[in-house]
Amino acid sequence: MAKVFLKRNRKKRLEQGHPWIFQSEVDHIEGDFEPGDFVDVYNHQHYFLAKGYINPKSQMIVRVLTQNPEDELNEQFFIERIRQAWAYRERMIPGVRSCRAIYGEADFLPGLIVDKYEDVLVVQILSLGMEKRKDWILRGLLEVFQPRAIYLRNDVYVRELEGLKQEKGFWYGEAETEVLIEENGVKYIVDIENGQKTGFFFDQRQNRAAIKPLIDSNTTVLDCFTHIGSFMLNACLYGAKHVTAVDISEHAIETAKRNAALNGFTNVEFVVANAFDYLREAVRDGKQWDVVIIDPPAFAKSAHAVPKALRGYKDINLNGLKLVKDGGFFVTSSCSYHVRPHMFEEMVAEAAFDAKKILRQVYWNGAGYDHPKLLAADEGDYLKFAIYEVHSRR
Amino acid sequence: MAKVFLKRNRKKRLEQGHPWIFQSEVDHIEGDFEPGDFVDVYNHQHYFLAKGYINPKSQMIVRVLTQNPEDELNEQFFIERIRQAWAYRERMIPGVRSCRAIYGEADFLPGLIVDKYEDVLVVQILSLGMEKRKDWILRGLLEVFQPRAIYLRNDVYVRELEGLKQEKGFWYGEAETEVLIEENGVKYIVDIENGQKTGFFFDQRQNRAAIKPLIDSNTTVLDCFTHIGSFMLNACLYGAKHVTAVDISEHAIETAKRNAALNGFTNVEFVVANAFDYLREAVRDGKQWDVVIIDPPAFAKSAHAVPKALRGYKDINLNGLKLVKDGGFFVTSSCSYHVRPHMFEEMVAEAAFDAKKILRQVYWNGAGYDHPKLLAADEGDYLKFAIYEVHSRR
Repeated sequence: MAKVFLKRNRKKRLEQGHPWIFQSEVDHIEGDFEPGDFVDVYNHQHYFLAKGYINPKSQMIVRVLTQNPEDELNEQFFIERIRQAWAYRERMIPGVRSCRAIYGEADFLPGLIVDKYEDVLVVQILSLGMEKRKDWILRGLLEVFQPRAIYLRNDVYVRELEGLKQEKGFWYGEAETEVLIEENGVKYIVDIENGQKTGFFFDQRQNRAAIKPLIDSNTTVLDCFTHIGSFMLNACLYGAKHVTAVDISEHAIETAKRNAALNGFTNVEFVVANAFDYLREAVRDGKQWDVVIIDPPAFAKSAHAVPKALRGYKDINLNGLKLVKDGGFFVTSSCSYHVRPHMFEEMVAEAAFDAKKILRQVYWNGAGYDHPKLLAADEGDYLKFAIYEVHSRR
Repeated sequence: MAKVFLKRNRKKRLEQGHPWIFQSEVDHIEGDFEPGDFVDVYNHQHYFLAKGYINPKSQMIVRVLTQNPEDELNEQFFIERIRQAWAYRERMIPGVRSCRAIYGEADFLPGLIVDKYEDVLVVQILSLGMEKRKDWILRGLLEVFQPRAIYLRNDVYVRELEGLKQEKGFWYGEAETEVLIEENGVKYIVDIENGQKTGFFFDQRQNRAAIKPLIDSNTTVLDCFTHIGSFMLNACLYGAKHVTAVDISEHAIETAKRNAALNGFTNVEFVVANAFDYLREAVRDGKQWDVVIIDPPAFAKSAHAVPKALRGYKDINLNGLKLVKDGGFFVTSSCSYHVRPHMFEEMVAEAAFDAKKILRQVYWNGAGYDHPKLLAADEGDYLKFAIYEVHSRR
C-alpha cells in the first residue's frame, strides 16, 4: 500500500478529526498506487495518522476512512460502517423507516450518500474511492437494509471532478420511481428519478415538526418555496385553518397538490409564482398571515456568492416579516453553508430593523439527527432554521 | 411624565428591539421624576421611541416596557403582559404545569422573574421600576395563575444596585417550602426557600429529554454536577442500567437521593466529591461509562473571568471525554453567558484533540421554550448544550 507523508507545517486538521487531506498538505508519496486505491497516511515524523483512499485528480487528494491502524479496509469494514450508520438512525429516531441513512463523512464513509425511502434506497456515489468499492457497498446495503430496490442518483457534476461519469437508474432490483413515504405523520410521494437531489430533503424533519405549537384551527399560514409541500403539509396536519403554498416550479406545485390530496388536506391555496415577487406584492396588497414560512433553496453556492445571497435572503425575510400579523410567527431558514449562522442571524436582525419588528426567538436548530456532523468539519454545519415571534414597533 | 432624550450618535439598539438604555446614551431629561417612575423615551429628533421605567441609580437608567405610543402603562397593561407570557408557555409546552412563567425582558417585563411550581409561584423582583408596581404584579399573578401561594426570592444582590433591600418569604398565601413538581415524567422535590435561584433550573427541560435516545437497559451513565439529580433522574427514567451521580454539595446529594427515592430509582451511586477531582481520578483508575454528562454551574460571571473559566471547562471536558467508552456519548453544557457558543465549541474541540477523540455532534441546543430570547438582546443567549458521539483515534 502506498504511503502518503504530510508536511511538517500543515494544520493538524486530521488529528482534530477532519477527514480531508488536500494536495497542498502532502509532502511526498512512497510506493505505487492507482487512483482510488487505499493508502496509509503519516505525518512528517513517519507517525501513522490514518487510512483512506487517494485520487490525485482531486484537490482533496485523500479522504480518510479510519484513524485506527488495526482497521483493515475490506468488505467487512464497509459493511460494518453501513451497519453502524443505520444503528445510529434507529437509535436516534425510534421507528424510523425513511431518512438519510448514510451521510458521507459524518458516517465515516466519505463520498457515499444513501437515502432510505421505506424499502427503496437511493444512493449517490460521489468519489472514485467509493466507486471502486461499489460491490462491497452493494453487499453492505443489501445485508443491512434488505431493500426491495436501490436506485443510483449519480447524476451529479461532482463525479466528473473525480473522473467519473454521470448516470442514474436502478442498481439493484426494480420498483416504481415514485415512492410513498411517511414523516411526522405526513405522507409524501417522492420522485426518486427526477426529484431534486435524491427526491426529498430529510434534514428538516425535526424543524417541520417544530411548527406544531404555532398552529391551531384559527391559524393562517403562508409557505414560500414550498417545493413538494413539506411545511404546508405539516401545517395542515397540525390543523391550520388555511395555507397558501407558493413555488416557482409548476412541477413542484403539481407534486405538492398530489401530496395534499394524498393526505386529504383541502384547505390549501396553491400558487405558482416567484416567491420574491409574491412576497413583495403581498406586502403591497396589505395581506397578512398568522405564520409565514420561508424555506428557500441555497442562494450561495460559494463564498464568492455570499453578498448577493444575503441581499436575496434579506429581501424575502424583510417582506416575509411584514406579512406576519402582530404576535404571529416567522419561520425562516437557509441551507447555504457559506452563509454562516451569525451572518444569517445578522441578516434577520437587519430585516427586522427595516420592517420595524421586534423578534423573539422561540426555536433555533440545524439539521436533524440523520444529518450528524463531525465537530472538526465545519462543512457539515450548513442548515440554519429559526422561529421568531413577531411584534411591531413604532 | 418625564421625557428622556437620547444622543444622536448612540447605537440604534432600541430600534433593534433591545430593551435597555444606558446612562451614556442619554442626552438630557425634561421634566421631574422620582426613581422608578415611568418615562417616555425620544430620539435626538424628538421622535417617540419607547416607554419604560427609570432608575438614575442604575447604569441601565431606563428599561423599556413598550415601543407602542398607544400603550398606557397601568395595571391592565401589566396583567395583559403576564397573561401573554403564560399563554405563550401553554402554547409551546402543551399541558405544562411547572416552568419559568415570566422571563424578564424576554417577556417584555424587564426585572420580573416568575417560576411556576405547580400551584406555587416563586417570584424575583429585580428592579425599582418593578418593585413600585408590586401591587399590579400581584393582582396579575393572582388573576392569570390563581396560585395557592406566592413566594418572594428577592434575596439577590442585584436588588441592592437598584437601592432595594434583599428579602425572602411568602408574599401571598402559604404553602410548604418544598414543592413537588413533575417534568418530562420525573418527579422532583423543589426547595423554594433555600434552593439555588428559585429552586430549580427549568432551562434544560428539553435538553434533559434529549438524552433519551442515548440510553437503554445496558447503559451506564456518569452525571457530574448532578445538583438535585436532574440528568441522573432522566437517565434512570429512560432505563439506564446504572448511574453515578456526583456533586460537591452534601445538601444537593441529599436532595438528589430523596428525588431518586421519590421516583423509585435504585440503580444510582451517589458521590459527594469535587467533580474536577472525581473526573481526574476516574481517568487515572481507568473507569469508563457509556454516557458521561457534565452540567456545571457558570464558571465565568464576567468577561474578565473567561480565560480562567475556559481552562476549567477544558479540564472537565478533557477528562470527561476520556471516560466515554468508544462509540459512547458525551453530554456537555455551559451556562456562562460570557463563554460564547463559538468559544464553547472551540474548547470542546481542543479537549477532544488532547483526549485523542473524534467527536460527532448529534444534538445542539440552548435553553428551552420557557426561556425565549429577544433577537436583539444577546444577553439571553447564555446556555450551550451539546451531545457528541465519541470515537477514539490513534
